[in-house]
Amino acid sequence: MRVQVAGTAQSGVKIDCSSRIAVVIDVLRATSVMTTALDNGARSVLPVTTIEEAETVFKTSDPACTLKGGERHALKIDGFDFGNSPLEYKRALVAGKDIIITTTNGTNAIRNVQKAEMMVLACLRNASAVVGFLIGKNKDVVIVCSGTEGKFSMDDGLCAGMLLHLLKEKTPVEWDDLGFLLERFYRNSAHDIFASLLDCFHVKRLLSLGFHEDLKFCFQTDRSTCIPMEIDGRFVRMG
Amino acid sequence: MRVQVAGTAQSGVKIDCSSRIAVVIDVLRATSVMTTALDNGARSVLPVTTIEEAETVFKTSDPACTLKGGERHALKIDGFDFGNSPLEYKRALVAGKDIIITTTNGTNAIRNVQKAEMMVLACLRNASAVVGFLIGKNKDVVIVCSGTEGKFSMDDGLCAGMLLHLLKEKTPVEWDDLGFLLERFYRNSAHDIFASLLDCFHVKRLLSLGFHEDLKFCFQTDRSTCIPMEIDGRFVRMG
Repeated sequence: MRVQVAGTAQSGVKIDCSSRIAVVIDVLRATSVMTTALDNGARSVLPVTTIEEAETVFKTSDPACTLKGGERHALKIDGFDFGNSPLEYKRALVAGKDIIITTTNGTNAIRNVQKAEMMVLACLRNASAVVGFLIGKNKDVVIVCSGTEGKFSMDDGLCAGMLLHLLKEKTPVEWDDLGFLLERFYRNSAHDIFASLLDCFHVKRLLSLGFHEDLKFCFQTDRSTCIPMEIDGRFVRMG
Repeated sequence: MRVQVAGTAQSGVKIDCSSRIAVVIDVLRATSVMTTALDNGARSVLPVTTIEEAETVFKTSDPACTLKGGERHALKIDGFDFGNSPLEYKRALVAGKDIIITTTNGTNAIRNVQKAEMMVLACLRNASAVVGFLIGKNKDVVIVCSGTEGKFSMDDGLCAGMLLHLLKEKTPVEWDDLGFLLERFYRNSAHDIFASLLDCFHVKRLLSLGFHEDLKFCFQTDRSTCIPMEIDGRFVRMG
């Protein structure tokens, strides 16, 4: 299996994903949120890139079973039901609902790989489940780290490294230079992920905004068997 | 001092370098070649992006003191005086000469940061000299790793990590997530750079083409005090 890693949402644009499975990662926090929402019974998650697009889609949806979530500058958008904290997406609120989500980095990364043969979302919480899925498919893979504001972000890189590490335990993997570096970073960090990411720009920003519990939640590994799988632009639960 | 790191020539395009010093790295082999040529007495090095551009500039230059170098697919270009091996650029051949060079990755990276306040070239051989220069200037810095065919390359990343490591020994440095990862990679690799880069795609390719001596030369650290500095599109020797 050949695995290519894109360090940012923007670099994902230039990769031909047409005959490959794309795995999009935004640990802080879009793909952690979407995985959690589906885990807690949401019927689907629809990522959109702008607030205007979220409002437009909402107007043509059944208001009884549609909710809106997302963030700008890490904070909840006025008039939306949820922010970008996975802890908000509780079963009592999301079960059976379709959720429209717009975030700064993750939804852009998803848009940038629309032409992939298949697309799934990964975070630290569902990494092993995603790896099991990829092993089963046995196709070439593009891992897209969403990054933060156009720049590489260590949290996503660590998750990419975890995927690569788990993959190579089960199948021969041919990876690129960035993949090599990130797998090593994961191996050196797995014993204490939170401590290993304390220098990460995005972690520092979320800590300064009081999102300590979000970070703890997002840095837990193997808590979910849910694989968010794209079908016609929406993500639904597999696994 | 704030230092931003771009992992590829392409990602350098999007960075506003206008009030910063740009440091372009292409260890294998463009910036190692240019540093060596200037070290061996070349009067200037002019990087151009295409073979046609190299021929056009050559036609308007004094043929008695102008030479052409560069590569396509790592090999010498027909009719050119030099390939992309730093070992070819001997003092007896290059002293006093202006050299037009076109390479696949490095010259693209240089083109992509033309708007920087100042631009210098770095490789492992002149890393300490470049750090001394940056400390003296005390301005914000953008380090652009050229990469290989649009992808991150470990050799350039390791050199960026070396620059960051040496900088932080001498001055407070605020770096980004990629810089953090690369500085750590350098620290773990400094004891045996060649061995640390054996998994690098570009290293494997050059080894398969018989460029073992080039690699040994390019992986030597602190052998040059030359800082190639851009002036009107050409690089001249400082230091």
